[in-house]
Amino acid sequence: MISKAKVKFMKSLQLKKYRKQEQRFLVEGAKSVAELLASDFEVTQVVGTAAFLNSLSPTVTAEQIEATEAELAALGEFQSNNTALAIARMKPNRLLEVSEKEFAIVLDDIRDPGNLGTIIRTADWYGIHKIIASSETADFYNPKVITATMGSFTRVEICYTQLPEYLAIAKHTVWGAYLDGSNVHTTDFGEGGLILIGNESRGIAPELQHFVTQKVTIPRYGKAESLNAAIATAVICDNIRRMSGM
Amino acid sequence: MISKAKVKFMKSLQLKKYRKQEQRFLVEGAKSVAELLASDFEVTQVVGTAAFLNSLSPTVTAEQIEATEAELAALGEFQSNNTALAIARMKPNRLLEVSEKEFAIVLDDIRDPGNLGTIIRTADWYGIHKIIASSETADFYNPKVITATMGSFTRVEICYTQLPEYLAIAKHTVWGAYLDGSNVHTTDFGEGGLILIGNESRGIAPELQHFVTQKVTIPRYGKAESLNAAIATAVICDNIRRMSGM
Repeated sequence: MISKAKVKFMKSLQLKKYRKQEQRFLVEGAKSVAELLASDFEVTQVVGTAAFLNSLSPTVTAEQIEATEAELAALGEFQSNNTALAIARMKPNRLLEVSEKEFAIVLDDIRDPGNLGTIIRTADWYGIHKIIASSETADFYNPKVITATMGSFTRVEICYTQLPEYLAIAKHTVWGAYLDGSNVHTTDFGEGGLILIGNESRGIAPELQHFVTQKVTIPRYGKAESLNAAIATAVICDNIRRMSGM
Repeated sequence: MISKAKVKFMKSLQLKKYRKQEQRFLVEGAKSVAELLASDFEVTQVVGTAAFLNSLSPTVTAEQIEATEAELAALGEFQSNNTALAIARMKPNRLLEVSEKEFAIVLDDIRDPGNLGTIIRTADWYGIHKIIASSETADFYNPKVITATMGSFTRVEICYTQLPEYLAIAKHTVWGAYLDGSNVHTTDFGEGGLILIGNESRGIAPELQHFVTQKVTIPRYGKAESLNAAIATAVICDNIRRMSGM
């Protein structure tokens, strides 16, 4: 049985205000909790069914709280997560160093938590471990983001910053998707650079456009006006990795 | 001012039960409504601000109802859609004929409306106009699906059917994404075929696996276990179109 005070505390972490105040966040679902426990995040509590808690390694030092499936479903953001849930400490927001021989993703106001989570998962698939995000981008620690990453939140780091200042001093090639750039199917992306992804509605912000050093275009064969931001990210990453292996 | 009876009717169309009963569906947002009016769907009502209604072509024969931004925001599924909304007739669920020289997408239980909408938008971008979906796939006419397509619901057709029966008589190549297939970067997809996309959680259903004639693999460069279903669809479509242009 889980105490009312603990339920209240955990539910409060669905809101950014309380996450910021407590510097903790929620991870839902058995698979994500298992990835969390294997990561370098500091886990403070694990709530799970008796079966889940019994399956944990004896090296887990976090407080363990047994709960029923119904209690777990009521606790989280997603009713389908009824096996496990954990609370971990947020990492400090530190500026990420990106070497000239690696790719990183720069997000200009990606507002939708599902899109951000999918971008993180996709970055992890393509071996990209750093994301630099504008301060208006959805919160990495939002439970919807964490869940959509399918565990990749443990392998991809993010930092939030002011993009105009960040891009002004960056020495990297900055790739941006436009309608009149070079074809991503034949572009040589070289060994590294920043992939700038624009907001879902307005694309890359006017004040960031002059930082784009290389415009690229995903060829269109039909009539949709644009691609979803996470889809565009994936297609660019797939072409970067394909070209570098040729 | 919009009558209470009309508000009740429109709100009822957010539920599949009432859409099925009335054979109508909702389209939200100025851009989507404009694309709807330019399509072959039969539009029965347009609700919009005075400015939106004034901007319509005189050839629009649907009933026009003026509403305030606040009324519009309250009517739809999405509060951000406060300019226009329309009601149109659903098309009958007819089996789509796929020629041997075209590509179509086959969806095995894609449950998330956002994923389905994004797949439709992506298909439209890549010039794929037909989707064959299992009956457990999310409803094409769900307002969340329609909105996520960003207007592409007017250019991509879908039919719902029993996939084992459908695939048993299909003469096409059936492409399926697996971990041990041929690399999508070097696969020759030929001139046409069916691209089978598996469910978000379990992948391609066991009873459909023997219909896959060509296994393909999206190369992985990092550690994510899998890609989101819409992302995998996009990467496969991008490689199909790239290879066919080489």
